[in-house]
Amino acid sequence: MLTISQRGHLMPASPIRKLVPFAEAAKKKGIKVYHLNIGQPDIETPKMVLDAVRNSDFSILEYSHSAGNESYRKKLVQYYESVGIQVDYNQIIVTTGGSEAILFGFMTCLDVGDEVIIPEPFYANYNGFAVEAGVHVVPITSRIETGFALPPIEDFEKAITPRTKAIVICNPNNPTGYSYTRSEMEQLKELIKKHNLYLFSDEAYREFTYDEKQVSAMHLQGVDENVIIMDTISKRYSACGGRIGAFVTKNKAVLDATMKFAQARLSPPSFAQIAAEAAVDLPADYFNTTKEEYRSRRDLIVQRLNAMQGVYCPNPGGAFYAMAKLPIDDSDKFCQWLLESFEYNGATLMLAPATGFYGTPGLGMQEVRLAYVLNLTAIDAAMNCLEQALKVYPGKTN
Amino acid sequence: MLTISQRGHLMPASPIRKLVPFAEAAKKKGIKVYHLNIGQPDIETPKMVLDAVRNSDFSILEYSHSAGNESYRKKLVQYYESVGIQVDYNQIIVTTGGSEAILFGFMTCLDVGDEVIIPEPFYANYNGFAVEAGVHVVPITSRIETGFALPPIEDFEKAITPRTKAIVICNPNNPTGYSYTRSEMEQLKELIKKHNLYLFSDEAYREFTYDEKQVSAMHLQGVDENVIIMDTISKRYSACGGRIGAFVTKNKAVLDATMKFAQARLSPPSFAQIAAEAAVDLPADYFNTTKEEYRSRRDLIVQRLNAMQGVYCPNPGGAFYAMAKLPIDDSDKFCQWLLESFEYNGATLMLAPATGFYGTPGLGMQEVRLAYVLNLTAIDAAMNCLEQALKVYPGKTN
Repeated sequence: MLTISQRGHLMPASPIRKLVPFAEAAKKKGIKVYHLNIGQPDIETPKMVLDAVRNSDFSILEYSHSAGNESYRKKLVQYYESVGIQVDYNQIIVTTGGSEAILFGFMTCLDVGDEVIIPEPFYANYNGFAVEAGVHVVPITSRIETGFALPPIEDFEKAITPRTKAIVICNPNNPTGYSYTRSEMEQLKELIKKHNLYLFSDEAYREFTYDEKQVSAMHLQGVDENVIIMDTISKRYSACGGRIGAFVTKNKAVLDATMKFAQARLSPPSFAQIAAEAAVDLPADYFNTTKEEYRSRRDLIVQRLNAMQGVYCPNPGGAFYAMAKLPIDDSDKFCQWLLESFEYNGATLMLAPATGFYGTPGLGMQEVRLAYVLNLTAIDAAMNCLEQALKVYPGKTN
Repeated sequence: MLTISQRGHLMPASPIRKLVPFAEAAKKKGIKVYHLNIGQPDIETPKMVLDAVRNSDFSILEYSHSAGNESYRKKLVQYYESVGIQVDYNQIIVTTGGSEAILFGFMTCLDVGDEVIIPEPFYANYNGFAVEAGVHVVPITSRIETGFALPPIEDFEKAITPRTKAIVICNPNNPTGYSYTRSEMEQLKELIKKHNLYLFSDEAYREFTYDEKQVSAMHLQGVDENVIIMDTISKRYSACGGRIGAFVTKNKAVLDATMKFAQARLSPPSFAQIAAEAAVDLPADYFNTTKEEYRSRRDLIVQRLNAMQGVYCPNPGGAFYAMAKLPIDDSDKFCQWLLESFEYNGATLMLAPATGFYGTPGLGMQEVRLAYVLNLTAIDAAMNCLEQALKVYPGKTN
């Protein structure tokens, strides 16, 4: 009999996607759906970035170098320099989105059966890449009561086994918006030194911090061999569809092995490398404008959420996500109910149930993730819907 | 200690790339190098395909659907119809190059430790994707004496074990240029039915056949559940850098599982999907012009090769590769020598040693692959170099 592989079965379905049919049904009924469920920013891609592609004049759409165009990697050196990271261009492998950088890290550094520790809640697709690489994810719980700060180092220590090879952090964090402090990063540094672990640092949201500047894993001294940055232009320049990321490390053995994976798939996309290279030359105030927009949205959504009875939303320091604890029985049921059975002034909202972001079963049942990727007016309207919904939801707990 | 994974060690380095430093050194000495080593066509990407991207007017470079834009998949249905393949748009998952389609197939259909049978010589990167998926490649030798026709079915039968899950073919073939006949495809059909195997059919070069039309695996009757096509626009429209391919099957369970892998990496590149969609509307004579160009090149290169003493080159029916047997001791040494120690009229040529395309150690030592991706004048000049080289190469065997 033709069979599907174990990993084909194990591979998790997207936790958000299962709600899509309900959103589509709501729209068919004429209900407006505010999408706070996904990380697709509504911010326009900078015109000069798109124009770089539109004004290109090559006549053959050729493979690029497997590590990405040399000219782009050299530009990236300037970019990293601007955020306090010193790397050489041959320490950068341009990847097909941040996704591929994560997969490459797992493939290169971990064997089938090895373990990777990830503070939960975490970006759900780490699970998928772990399944592809045959790697076990060991979650360490961070808690909404502490604003999702780094869990105590003792929790990591307890979870480390002889098969532990790496720790993954996302900083600032998706889904919590938490931005790790210098002190937390230093604690992680001591931990990876002590146990000889890799630190995979997903820094997709590097620029989007609202209180303190992001502390990159590459700002840590003395752990050059341990640190790998998984990067992407997706959120930075609102260029998600480009599928351009980067795998950055000073570990030569890791680079050499990863280059073989990069060569097998030939090259990252050529069009979007042109866009990404142009993006490095954006004016210095580009992020300021974008950040101010996100900050206003954060301030509004956090204020509105905390003003609702029984709701708690810690103030996220970065990214464009907020996690809120709601007075509900089950976040999956609630998010489905919002789409299936609720409307307020002809509208409802779509949220991401937090259960999909936890590795520990049963956690996140009262939490939802809100991506503030809509403008202030839309966020306000969506919060009106949520406020009303919490008053009438049959499974409310207060 | 920080370690590299077993697959990081096992992952093969590109068999061609190891010659690159020698080519670069030759160029630094002022020697012109004719590159017959790689599958990067010199044919221009059709202007209307590039213009579709250049004239696009979206303002946010968004994620596409994880299976690719619905509009593109619907266009692809028309394209497949034009080559005698009936599929529904939801039986197509747009991938990041043909590379990703191959990886998805291995990941979805084979478990770690399972076996896949591939007629050798074969596209070297199949090895890489097999390593990533933890799958064993079992090669079955096709021979230059038969023009690299399908090996006898008994050879497949002998190689099948309880762990055999799939057969991979590339049709027309890279590196041999061989185009499987209807009769060979029917034999494969009986084999996969008898043993319940998947047939992964890499049809990257579908349009490039010079004698008979290509027989697609999807032209076979009664094996809808077994067949998966791995496709790509790279060679078809000279659009290698777009990184757009397709995973096509009527097997619902395979599609559902593969969609989970597709969702984990979010989406294929957005820019190049626009290009690929436009390409479906190219005028019907587009392939005729391109094919005639490749056919003239094939005719010239095959004629020139067979006119050289001790050289044998079977006439390839498709793709843009020819495999030649040369009177030499070791193809790796010879290809390096061409770059390092030889020149004729200020020029030399770069070839791909065939050893990298065989899974069985020791095979291909007298064979090289020539990609006829240069114009007729350049091919002629390159053949002049080769003819001269074979007269003076210290390791010649006749």
